[in-house]
Amino acid sequence: TRRGVPEAILCDGKIPGEVATLATTAVETTGRALVTRADDEQIQAVRARLAKEHPDANVQVRERANILVAHAVGFSKPELDATVGVVSAGTSDAIPAGEAVTVAEEMGASTEEIHDVGVASLVRVLDEVETLRDADVLVVAAGREGALPTVIAGLVDTPVIGLPVSNGYGHAGQGKSALLGMLQSCTVLSAVNIDAGFMAGAQAGLIAQAIGSAKE
Amino acid sequence: TRRGVPEAILCDGKIPGEVATLATTAVETTGRALVTRADDEQIQAVRARLAKEHPDANVQVRERANILVAHAVGFSKPELDATVGVVSAGTSDAIPAGEAVTVAEEMGASTEEIHDVGVASLVRVLDEVETLRDADVLVVAAGREGALPTVIAGLVDTPVIGLPVSNGYGHAGQGKSALLGMLQSCTVLSAVNIDAGFMAGAQAGLIAQAIGSAKE
Amino acid sequence: TRRGVPEAILCDGKIPGEVATLATTAVETTGRALVTRADDEQIQAVRARLAKEHPDANVQVRERANILVAHAVGFSKPELDATVGVVSAGTSDAIPAGEAVTVAEEMGASTEEIHDVGVASLVRVLDEVETLRDADVLVVAAGREGALPTVIAGLVDTPVIGLPVSNGYGHAGQGKSALLGMLQSCTVLSAVNIDAGFMAGAQAGLIAQAIGSAKE
Amino acid sequence: TRRGVPEAILCDGKIPGEVATLATTAVETTGRALVTRADDEQIQAVRARLAKEHPDANVQVRERANILVAHAVGFSKPELDATVGVVSAGTSDAIPAGEAVTVAEEMGASTEEIHDVGVASLVRVLDEVETLRDADVLVVAAGREGALPTVIAGLVDTPVIGLPVSNGYGHAGQGKSALLGMLQSCTVLSAVNIDAGFMAGAQAGLIAQAIGSAKE
Amino acid sequence: TRRGVPEAILCDGKIPGEVATLATTAVETTGRALVTRADDEQIQAVRARLAKEHPDANVQVRERANILVAHAVGFSKPELDATVGVVSAGTSDAIPAGEAVTVAEEMGASTEEIHDVGVASLVRVLDEVETLRDADVLVVAAGREGALPTVIAGLVDTPVIGLPVSNGYGHAGQGKSALLGMLQSCTVLSAVNIDAGFMAGAQAGLIAQAIGSAKE
Amino acid sequence: TRRGVPEAILCDGKIPGEVATLATTAVETTGRALVTRADDEQIQAVRARLAKEHPDANVQVRERANILVAHAVGFSKPELDATVGVVSAGTSDAIPAGEAVTVAEEMGASTEEIHDVGVASLVRVLDEVETLRDADVLVVAAGREGALPTVIAGLVDTPVIGLPVSNGYGHAGQGKSALLGMLQSCTVLSAVNIDAGFMAGAQAGLIAQAIGSAKE
Amino acid sequence: TRRGVPEAILCDGKIPGEVATLATTAVETTGRALVTRADDEQIQAVRARLAKEHPDANVQVRERANILVAHAVGFSKPELDATVGVVSAGTSDAIPAGEAVTVAEEMGASTEEIHDVGVASLVRVLDEVETLRDADVLVVAAGREGALPTVIAGLVDTPVIGLPVSNGYGHAGQGKSALLGMLQSCTVLSAVNIDAGFMAGAQAGLIAQAIGSAKE
Amino acid sequence: TRRGVPEAILCDGKIPGEVATLATTAVETTGRALVTRADDEQIQAVRARLAKEHPDANVQVRERANILVAHAVGFSKPELDATVGVVSAGTSDAIPAGEAVTVAEEMGASTEEIHDVGVASLVRVLDEVETLRDADVLVVAAGREGALPTVIAGLVDTPVIGLPVSNGYGHAGQGKSALLGMLQSCTVLSAVNIDAGFMAGAQAGLIAQAIGSAKE
Ligand SMILES: Nc1ncnc2c1ncn2[C@@H]1O[C@H](COP(=O)(O)O)[C@@H](O)[C@H]1O
Ligand SMILES: Nc1ncnc2c1ncn2[C@@H]1O[C@H](COP(=O)(O)O)[C@@H](O)[C@H]1O
Ligand SMILES: Nc1ncnc2c1ncn2[C@@H]1O[C@H](COP(=O)(O)O)[C@@H](O)[C@H]1O
Ligand SMILES: Nc1ncnc2c1ncn2[C@@H]1O[C@H](COP(=O)(O)O)[C@@H](O)[C@H]1O
Ligand SMILES: [Mg+2]
Ligand SMILES: [Mg+2]
Ligand SMILES: [Mg+2]
Ligand SMILES: [Mg+2]
Ligand SMILES: [Mg+2]
Ligand SMILES: [Mg+2]
Ligand SMILES: [Mg+2]
Ligand SMILES: [Mg+2]
Repeated sequence: TRRGVPEAILCDGKIPGEVATLATTAVETTGRALVTRADDEQIQAVRARLAKEHPDANVQVRERANILVAHAVGFSKPELDATVGVVSAGTSDAIPAGEAVTVAEEMGASTEEIHDVGVASLVRVLDEVETLRDADVLVVAAGREGALPTVIAGLVDTPVIGLPVSNGYGHAGQGKSALLGMLQSCTVLSAVNIDAGFMAGAQAGLIAQAIGSAKE
Repeated sequence: TRRGVPEAILCDGKIPGEVATLATTAVETTGRALVTRADDEQIQAVRARLAKEHPDANVQVRERANILVAHAVGFSKPELDATVGVVSAGTSDAIPAGEAVTVAEEMGASTEEIHDVGVASLVRVLDEVETLRDADVLVVAAGREGALPTVIAGLVDTPVIGLPVSNGYGHAGQGKSALLGMLQSCTVLSAVNIDAGFMAGAQAGLIAQAIGSAKE
Repeated sequence: TRRGVPEAILCDGKIPGEVATLATTAVETTGRALVTRADDEQIQAVRARLAKEHPDANVQVRERANILVAHAVGFSKPELDATVGVVSAGTSDAIPAGEAVTVAEEMGASTEEIHDVGVASLVRVLDEVETLRDADVLVVAAGREGALPTVIAGLVDTPVIGLPVSNGYGHAGQGKSALLGMLQSCTVLSAVNIDAGFMAGAQAGLIAQAIGSAKE
Repeated sequence: TRRGVPEAILCDGKIPGEVATLATTAVETTGRALVTRADDEQIQAVRARLAKEHPDANVQVRERANILVAHAVGFSKPELDATVGVVSAGTSDAIPAGEAVTVAEEMGASTEEIHDVGVASLVRVLDEVETLRDADVLVVAAGREGALPTVIAGLVDTPVIGLPVSNGYGHAGQGKSALLGMLQSCTVLSAVNIDAGFMAGAQAGLIAQAIGSAKE
Repeated sequence: TRRGVPEAILCDGKIPGEVATLATTAVETTGRALVTRADDEQIQAVRARLAKEHPDANVQVRERANILVAHAVGFSKPELDATVGVVSAGTSDAIPAGEAVTVAEEMGASTEEIHDVGVASLVRVLDEVETLRDADVLVVAAGREGALPTVIAGLVDTPVIGLPVSNGYGHAGQGKSALLGMLQSCTVLSAVNIDAGFMAGAQAGLIAQAIGSAKE
Repeated sequence: TRRGVPEAILCDGKIPGEVATLATTAVETTGRALVTRADDEQIQAVRARLAKEHPDANVQVRERANILVAHAVGFSKPELDATVGVVSAGTSDAIPAGEAVTVAEEMGASTEEIHDVGVASLVRVLDEVETLRDADVLVVAAGREGALPTVIAGLVDTPVIGLPVSNGYGHAGQGKSALLGMLQSCTVLSAVNIDAGFMAGAQAGLIAQAIGSAKE
Repeated sequence: TRRGVPEAILCDGKIPGEVATLATTAVETTGRALVTRADDEQIQAVRARLAKEHPDANVQVRERANILVAHAVGFSKPELDATVGVVSAGTSDAIPAGEAVTVAEEMGASTEEIHDVGVASLVRVLDEVETLRDADVLVVAAGREGALPTVIAGLVDTPVIGLPVSNGYGHAGQGKSALLGMLQSCTVLSAVNIDAGFMAGAQAGLIAQAIGSAKE
Repeated sequence: TRRGVPEAILCDGKIPGEVATLATTAVETTGRALVTRADDEQIQAVRARLAKEHPDANVQVRERANILVAHAVGFSKPELDATVGVVSAGTSDAIPAGEAVTVAEEMGASTEEIHDVGVASLVRVLDEVETLRDADVLVVAAGREGALPTVIAGLVDTPVIGLPVSNGYGHAGQGKSALLGMLQSCTVLSAVNIDAGFMAGAQAGLIAQAIGSAKE
């Protein structure tokens, strides 16, 4: 791990066997494997290989986020006294939001997921204001026009990291408008690239680390 | 006038004398001159020429919007039983928002201006919900990330026309992010080009015309 | 429904089973399901599920538009005294134009479809002028250079919503040139994003609602 | 001259004295100077220098097109039995349209200018159909959405060269939408770059040359 | 046919049965079917259908260009006394170059194909100068940086139409750099969109028509 | 102040008198004025006005950053036990880096400025590693290719906010490449828009607030 | 060979049989075949054909780089007294980096491959400085933000050619940010297009040729 | 100097006094000042300051390239046995081409300037082939479509560095098309950014250094 950020295995363009080998090596050398953007076949390959070679490893799959985490026996995550809140609007945000949650947790932070919050129904946003304010740092995922982090950053004192999501079709679709809107936000926030849930979660994790250390 | 939309004289790149001549001709041939994007010098030139050649014409200047309207004696605008609401956030929206108001008025609509409304202070938006709902059609101007029309369109039944404004610097600044966000909006609206206040006001005017006629 | 606009289920990236479940839930909770961008397999899945669980629901498929609408027994659409005209040039406009028609109808508007109208054969446009003028609001779909809404908006008093369609290859193909041309139109119109037939129809529906209410 | 296309002196970024020197040399070596994009000061400098050094040269200025043409005594243009039609919508097309006319004339073609033709008033286009059909080749200038060449190419058998003009503000303004629309045109035409009136006129001139030669 | 340009059936996104039906109808109503961008399956479908329903029709396939042309018995193309030259560099230009040749031929022009000419081996270009000069109008296809039409237009008096081809990978690949280079060409030419071989051939055909008529 | 972030007066496009009025009002209503992107004339206007109306106010100008801060008598900034480090490479980073420093200080953070650090001389970066690690949060400004935040984020555990600066000419110049590189960074960081020093400093200030609160 | 650069057969979009035929012809006519971007099936086709028709040819496959090189009996590469260093960060650089190595070798240069060097772990870069300095010319591959060539060019006197690699997702992904960063580099280097390993290796080979000749 | 590349003072956005101070310091500390993009006023300021403080320094101005070089008494450039050829087409290439020449000379290389060479007149290119082949490395400047380096690289064995120049208006003007064309070149070359004459000259200088050293 660098900066407490776990190394991750990004499955894009790898065959199941390669992923399984990389994950097994990671478990053996670092005590942990964090596998992202994995399809069913890749997940099964990792599960099968670990079942055979490390039957006692703890394997968790975050289904809709296409993530698998394996911990070797005896591996224990760092502990961190700080909470990362991860806000998402709908099912199309599931993968990047799930990546952010998983990375923050693996860095030792507590996480709080706030679902089904979108600018189209402001009431839901206002209902969650207390939960939003209770987090130490927020990752706010949003697709299409990406207005949600702007709106939330106007309601809380918490640092907000905008996470643009690649939905939406047509001109500036696939997260482009969302990213640009976060860069132009009239409320204070910083942003990561489109679908960069791992990056957003890791940045939130670093901020949580700093806050957690300060509490000690 | 085409479709009830007044012809306008767009001052960009014209010398004061040309503008004055065009405005005078317009007053003489159509009873009205609508001069947009006029700087002080151009406005003075029109005023001076009209004072000399049509001293009895009624001349109104919408200062911060850089617009001048002149009516010949005896000219009367159409009358329309419908209201166009024009929402803006700050001083940088003044020119396009003012163009929208002026054109809608010249088409005969009543207008309601709602100022200082921005997503950075949601409370102000919520305070104005009743006024927003009372309009027959809304033009919502917004710069930077352009989230305002998206938020408002989630709160009203009224048709909303998004008007992106060319403020904001950096990547996708000068209204680009605002336009793209309106095209990707997760609430229902249609959009016009950046700073196209004239276009937004005219489209709102056409809708108001249709509503007004329906009332008859 | 928000603003009278029906919730729709966008099939992109969903497996048939998911779509069927979502549609069934929609029928049960709102009395209606509106399924868009559905391929044959997804349509069959919805049909099968509803046949089993709600055999008395009324199911309509708009074939070339890839849309399915289901109404529970006893569900009745709003009624609206206003007509939305939807203009299209050719077969490549079928999906977005069909989405616009369906949404407007589900909002209660009457619809008038005007097919095979393109700038390449102006005579056809001129032949339809009376029909175009009779509508209360027009959605005009166009691909490639997207000139059709500009031309039509010069011939009618009706509000026009430009709907760019993703055909055309090469530089600025897939609807981009069409969208940009509508934003730069020298006649008055507002626009929605590329292929955003649902958005265009809903915006037309909101305008029709306002006109219909005015008539009461 | 290459291919019968006269060399031109493009004034952008040159000081008046440089332009005057280049023009004088051109008159001396080729019998002709063709000076484009010249402001008043540059035109005066050329006039003054030629008045002094070649008082008998014939100097013509095409005012609104910012072009100066000088012919030495005894210089005579080629003669060509073919007509180039140049269509424009408004004053903002004056410079590129004027460049096209001048180059075509200097190549020996007859020219026919058709002004005030725009898609916003189709009637004007239809009124001119006979004139348009009489030309051997057409250059059609258009700004904003640039629909005019597409419309005209649907009405004539004549080859059409689209000439996009840099007016229009906002997204894809300054001729970009016009260019892209011409490249995506659903009627047959070829295009030149934005404001490339010289290029359009020269290409039309080459076609006129080929037609003129065929007549011999 | 409009302007002598044959209607074409563009196969993109059509199933073989649809193409076969459209082609058969075209043969029946216009005496000719011109089918472009056809894959093997689509070509077989058309062949089979025509063999059954119009066994005496003349069917020609231009293999590497993915084009099929069918003429009903008794159909005869127009005759035109002018030659369209079509220049291409390599196999990746085959489809658009072949489209240009076919359309020009169907419009009645003679065609001259000049293959394996590229800027990487200037000697080949220089070897072909006489052939290039003999054509009445040239279509020059080029991919990657698209320099070939610029170079050729500096060597001939013939009008040149640049046809950018979608090869080349990386930044500005897939024909974009080629198109932009043709628009910025320092020699005189006009351009069509990327891969728009049909458009280039039709524009060349219109010019050939004008030249052919002039010869009469 | 919202979220402890001071309101700022952005001078772009305002005349000196307007700026002076806004600053005076700010001092009167909030006890503080923060004036950014001010040229000499605007700074003089504010100084003069305050000297006259609030002679006892404390006025500080951050010369190379074009910033003026005025505190009314009795105004005191919040106090925060956390340090914001601001890294810059050269003189072209002075304005955005200075904005970041000023805002962070006005929010109560301690600041540490690290100058003349660039990827062209890695030794300087390595020399400063201890100072970089001592900060609680880092803002790293960089122009041209913008590699500096990526390099620094590989050397520290501290959260890094990338601040792209608008220098560099040619393709992707003016900060665009720097922004894109920060979004694509292979080390963990979040980014703000080009030249958005105010935004970067405010985001760093919010993180410092959270850390400072944790220490209490 | 042109300039000593071997002709290559680019497999993209070719069927295995075509590739095999082209490779066999190349072996027969030039003594060598260099096949790039070949998938397993294409490689097997070439191997099988050569095994049958030129069983004594020497065939080498550079597995992860998707390259096959075949030399006829008696073919001998040029010999060159100069070394091309090729630097890469990870597995996603394998194809372009391998292309660069292969081409340089086929031009006769010695090559030195330096793997697993990335800006995220500067220590590795610093460890390799001597090896980097020993090369006569360097090709440095990098994806994502593409900072590696900038960093290396600050540490050596050797000429550096930046080779952007198409990894990275989101805005400016797929090598775009890497390319732009190399063009904006604040240290001295020149660049080739994204994934253009063949081009980078050939340019390095030409420089090595010049250096090798100078040594003679 | 880093890598033998002289530090340069880029005048953009600096006032004359600042430039003069920076140049004087450079002369005092490194024995040399290299001032680029200097306007007349800035050049006069440097001249005046040096005349006063270092009257014996050798000051050379490269007029059309806006460059000033000053050498302190006793300063002597490195000596290098290699020639950099710099090719340019016209006056608009003067600044970047002049920068390339100056930097290469200051690094000790011999330089050979080849002017008035453009793809519009191939004969001139062919006339210079021997001179082009005699250089050890070539910098080829080109604006508009930027085809010149592609053409030259097909005629010589010498390494070619493409230098795009910011002329040309319209879509992809100001050097963009030229840059993209060099990146897509079908002959072997590497490129630098638009107008980056300093970068091109320095890269050529580094290659010349390597060649010069090899000769020793
Ligand atoms: N502020 C404005 N925004 C957009 N269009 C305008 C504006 N003002 C005037 N126009 C329109 O621009 C056209 C005037 O263009 P011109 O012929 O160049 O004077 C008319 O059709 C006006 O209706
Ligand atoms: N290869 C082609 N490139 C461009 N346009 C084509 C091509 N083939 C056919 N067309 C045109 O595309 C139109 C067919 O579009 P569609 O109505 O979608 O079948 C007709 O106007 C044809 O003339
Ligand atoms: N340098 C700056 N960069 C970005 N935003 C700023 C800057 N200075 C002030 N602002 C913000 O811009 C807004 C001022 O906009 P305005 O209402 O046009 O004066 C305020 O919300 C400020 O907090
Ligand atoms: N990997 C590669 N990247 C770039 N160019 C290549 C590559 N492989 C081969 N080429 C070049 O691409 C051309 C082959 O194009 P084609 O005529 O389509 O086969 C030849 O000039 C090769 O030298
Ligand atoms: Mg959203
Ligand atoms: Mg706003
Ligand atoms: Mg159309
Ligand atoms: Mg027009
Ligand atoms: Mg080529
Ligand atoms: Mg830097
Ligand atoms: Mg990298
Ligand atoms: Mg050139």
